Amino acid sequence: MPFQIKFITEGEEEVGGRGIEAFVNSDDGKKKLACDCVLVSDTSMFAPGQPTITYGLRGIVAFELFLTGPNRDLHSGTFGGSVFNPAIALTKIFSQFVGDNGVVKIPNFYDDVIPLTDRETRQFATLPFDDALFFKKIGLTKGFGEAGFTTNERRWARPTFDINGITAGYQGEGSKTIVPSKASAKFTCRLVPNQSPEKIAESVRNFIAELVPEGISWELVVQHGAAGMRLDLDRSRFVAPMSEALEQTFACPPVFTREGGSIPIVAEFNRSLGAEVLLVGWGQDDDALHSPNEKFSLSSFHAGILASARFMAEVARRSKTI
Amino acid sequence: MPFQIKFITEGEEEVGGRGIEAFVNSDDGKKKLACDCVLVSDTSMFAPGQPTITYGLRGIVAFELFLTGPNRDLHSGTFGGSVFNPAIALTKIFSQFVGDNGVVKIPNFYDDVIPLTDRETRQFATLPFDDALFFKKIGLTKGFGEAGFTTNERRWARPTFDINGITAGYQGEGSKTIVPSKASAKFTCRLVPNQSPEKIAESVRNFIAELVPEGISWELVVQHGAAGMRLDLDRSRFVAPMSEALEQTFACPPVFTREGGSIPIVAEFNRSLGAEVLLVGWGQDDDALHSPNEKFSLSSFHAGILASARFMAEVARRSKTI
Repeated sequence: MPFQIKFITEGEEEVGGRGIEAFVNSDDGKKKLACDCVLVSDTSMFAPGQPTITYGLRGIVAFELFLTGPNRDLHSGTFGGSVFNPAIALTKIFSQFVGDNGVVKIPNFYDDVIPLTDRETRQFATLPFDDALFFKKIGLTKGFGEAGFTTNERRWARPTFDINGITAGYQGEGSKTIVPSKASAKFTCRLVPNQSPEKIAESVRNFIAELVPEGISWELVVQHGAAGMRLDLDRSRFVAPMSEALEQTFACPPVFTREGGSIPIVAEFNRSLGAEVLLVGWGQDDDALHSPNEKFSLSSFHAGILASARFMAEVARRSKTI
Repeated sequence: MPFQIKFITEGEEEVGGRGIEAFVNSDDGKKKLACDCVLVSDTSMFAPGQPTITYGLRGIVAFELFLTGPNRDLHSGTFGGSVFNPAIALTKIFSQFVGDNGVVKIPNFYDDVIPLTDRETRQFATLPFDDALFFKKIGLTKGFGEAGFTTNERRWARPTFDINGITAGYQGEGSKTIVPSKASAKFTCRLVPNQSPEKIAESVRNFIAELVPEGISWELVVQHGAAGMRLDLDRSRFVAPMSEALEQTFACPPVFTREGGSIPIVAEFNRSLGAEVLLVGWGQDDDALHSPNEKFSLSSFHAGILASARFMAEVARRSKTI
């Protein structure tokens, strides 16, 4: 082969990937990893048998908010009605983050969002996607999101606010009549390319400062952040050989999609190494990512091996012209 | 002694006391428990060394609300922004229960509340009570509650809404980027005499039905309920001998207070047995009821034994006239 292959394995991605980020940005890392193209297979196929090149990812910033009211759990008979309940404070704060029209209400949240191009909107619209079936698979009759956008636009190209978990007071069987001392919530914003996790974190902090009721003390922890990314398809050197390899393997050309997930290191590979990052993955819709009973299909595994090998062959074949 | 003494022990009170309620209302129970006065020592002294007759209690009704969105926890990247997050739905619902002025916003919530009499308002106001100290003991600089009422009025004689616990999504260390499938909350309303737990439960159910966002399914479980009670001090036969016994023991006359807690069986003793219920307890402010490290003072225990014995002696001495 007229090129070298380097492998790098990341095992920390779901908790922010600080280790790999430090390495990729170090002098040693830059030297060892220097390359023209980074191939990452951490995305999904748009449909079974439909090869997919993912040219955009969302970024993320993750938080945890801790509220404290009284210094211990209180008897809700003796004290109830006379103190601010931090669990109620939590609901009052987080009820303000998303409007009835699905628009995120954090001030300045959308300032740096680059709107979808007409070409992207058309491209998304031509993909074979059945809204009703998509929601039926997850037990819903319909979706909900930012007004004026389709389901895929909402998932792939619009920023979000989601609560990932809430903890407050008594959670066991039956009832316990307390005013809890503490309440906390984990939450994340998915970001789109050009949004800065640091700027959004600052907006969130300022917004919460306005919303916390008097008498409730609070601490906001910013857990991890990562920028989104978007590959410029018109300037790419490696999309053509990958498209060829995918068509050889699946007997149909790839579709070009974005994904709503975040792979923090992807933007760093591009920024630090100056390399083109190609996202071609083999996940399936029913893999139940991040859910109980997550799986990965053997058929995806085998097709992925073949297509990856053919990609290398195609790059080798074109190596004079790339 | 010119009367009989019967003992009944209740071990289920904190979870609604269904067993004792059934017994007190059964033919067998009514026969076995028939009496003129029920003495309950499950209340607190207004201050150390200050004997206290509690002539009113709040009632309670306890609930648990379960919300379900998607049929499993979802990857917040792949799905975030396109589905209604049940944890956000929970915050939107419960943010609506208490207004900024501390008034409970459940429709018809205050319909059956009997206002405090002028005599009660005066009585409460003369009690030696230091707001700042009260809140300082629980780590707060100030309280919060229904506008237009003092702290003790809010605690003893006004109905409340409190969240006791919330559970949603991921609660472990670090972050997990999911849209949770489920969110739930335990909550209670403290009621005042004349409010019906059943009527309030119905109002809560109707209120929640209006608030649950489309696409979120819900189940409301009413866990237990109990009416409040208020003893008519002017008509009581047993307040005089108890006052005498308390003065003999503590060298000062009792104060008359209400309490914010609920003792579900108290209203039933009165209703089912036709007996006068006297609440004279020995708890102290710093007992940390329902909190970690709850305690009961030995000095309270010994004074309680003495005063209870003297009450019996006083009733015996007056038995011709009672």
